[in-house]
Amino acid sequence: MLTFVGLGLFDRTDISEKGLRCIRDADHVFLECYTSLLIGSSREELEEYYGKPVQPLYREDVEQHPDELLRLAEKESVAFLCAGDPMVSTTHADLRLRAGARGIRTAIIHGASISSAVCGLSGLQNYRFGKSCSLPFPQKNWFPTTPFEVVAKNLAQNLHTIVYLDIQNERYMTVPEAVALLDQMAARNGTTIPLYVGIARAGSDTPIVRAGTGSTLASAEFGPPLHILIVPAGLHDMEREYLEMFAGL
Amino acid sequence: MLTFVGLGLFDRTDISEKGLRCIRDADHVFLECYTSLLIGSSREELEEYYGKPVQPLYREDVEQHPDELLRLAEKESVAFLCAGDPMVSTTHADLRLRAGARGIRTAIIHGASISSAVCGLSGLQNYRFGKSCSLPFPQKNWFPTTPFEVVAKNLAQNLHTIVYLDIQNERYMTVPEAVALLDQMAARNGTTIPLYVGIARAGSDTPIVRAGTGSTLASAEFGPPLHILIVPAGLHDMEREYLEMFAGL
Repeated sequence: MLTFVGLGLFDRTDISEKGLRCIRDADHVFLECYTSLLIGSSREELEEYYGKPVQPLYREDVEQHPDELLRLAEKESVAFLCAGDPMVSTTHADLRLRAGARGIRTAIIHGASISSAVCGLSGLQNYRFGKSCSLPFPQKNWFPTTPFEVVAKNLAQNLHTIVYLDIQNERYMTVPEAVALLDQMAARNGTTIPLYVGIARAGSDTPIVRAGTGSTLASAEFGPPLHILIVPAGLHDMEREYLEMFAGL
Repeated sequence: MLTFVGLGLFDRTDISEKGLRCIRDADHVFLECYTSLLIGSSREELEEYYGKPVQPLYREDVEQHPDELLRLAEKESVAFLCAGDPMVSTTHADLRLRAGARGIRTAIIHGASISSAVCGLSGLQNYRFGKSCSLPFPQKNWFPTTPFEVVAKNLAQNLHTIVYLDIQNERYMTVPEAVALLDQMAARNGTTIPLYVGIARAGSDTPIVRAGTGSTLASAEFGPPLHILIVPAGLHDMEREYLEMFAGL
């Protein structure tokens, strides 16, 4: 049995009661450490909280050598932990497919995801979000403009866009970095993005939410990771009031 | 202090550890009973689980007479519980605004939401979803076609659509009902919807996920509520494999 368990947004206490019980009953516990991470709790803290060892998994463990994990799951109960809600990443879907192909029973215990948490933090209405996009760190000779195209298409339809910010090893893209990149892409297309909402540390006791123009947010202090960015479309009255009251618009 | 606490998807054990601690420490606990509900646990079961009274709130309590709740929150700690992740409904945003206007401190403890859970259950990739829509029960002389328009626009852009199904008092729209309505709207527009994915009881131990044409799903048995529907766009290879393995495609 292989159970995918979502750990939620920020620290060890964001897991559900159901997920915690699954982990405590599991024969083996693995923690996926490469698509996202629980900023507020280290693996060692999780081990202490669960009262059992938690084995880290990196990309090549899951994508190239999943055999060990799958072999265990054929006879015993394995909990596969990841930050947020499982399966938002394709690599989890691939693992579940491989398990299914071997006849291993699988299940998902859901956790809070940043994709819905941004609605509560920003007051931007869930049904007004279009397709989301990811913003990678620019690399030498590689500066993809797809994220801007997604944003522009959504804005043209009066839809908000969630922009997921890159995580590379221990480097986390910040809201000011992201805003600078998007402003640059917009400028190349002869346009500007009128408003951004930056969010830091969703799910923690000290989230920061700030709305403003690119230049306002570029100089704002968001503090430690993780950060996420929203490009809002035209605001409805209540969305505007909410950003004025809770995001310094 | 007013804390919005998400209860997650299905029953009392879907709440986070953080949320549970907040409830146990709260002076007053209210349960929002009109935008969604926790199918797997009654209010009485929640009271027993939390070890304290849980007061139900209906639409007019929150939208027309929120004063009592806000007065309490001025001096004591109040937990406002709702199924899923808080604030996906405008009525919660309105309550937080009213609290903010009175100078009451507010916070959100997030919970798992159906909006991300559908990705794991269906294998449909999060970043391929466009704007979502809600499908209301048809009323006498009122048959809105907005949901179909949202679906059609997403399909034209090769994007998936989440279709939230109506809840009216104790009447829950089912996947077969929803598919019949959307097929009817499509037919009026001289077109057809090629594929649906219906999901029942997300977050429970017995979720059902079925992919197929309208006529296949119209005769499928999904069992008790809550149900939700997805209209997928053209499938990527891994999405197709996932639906074949886990949703009977």
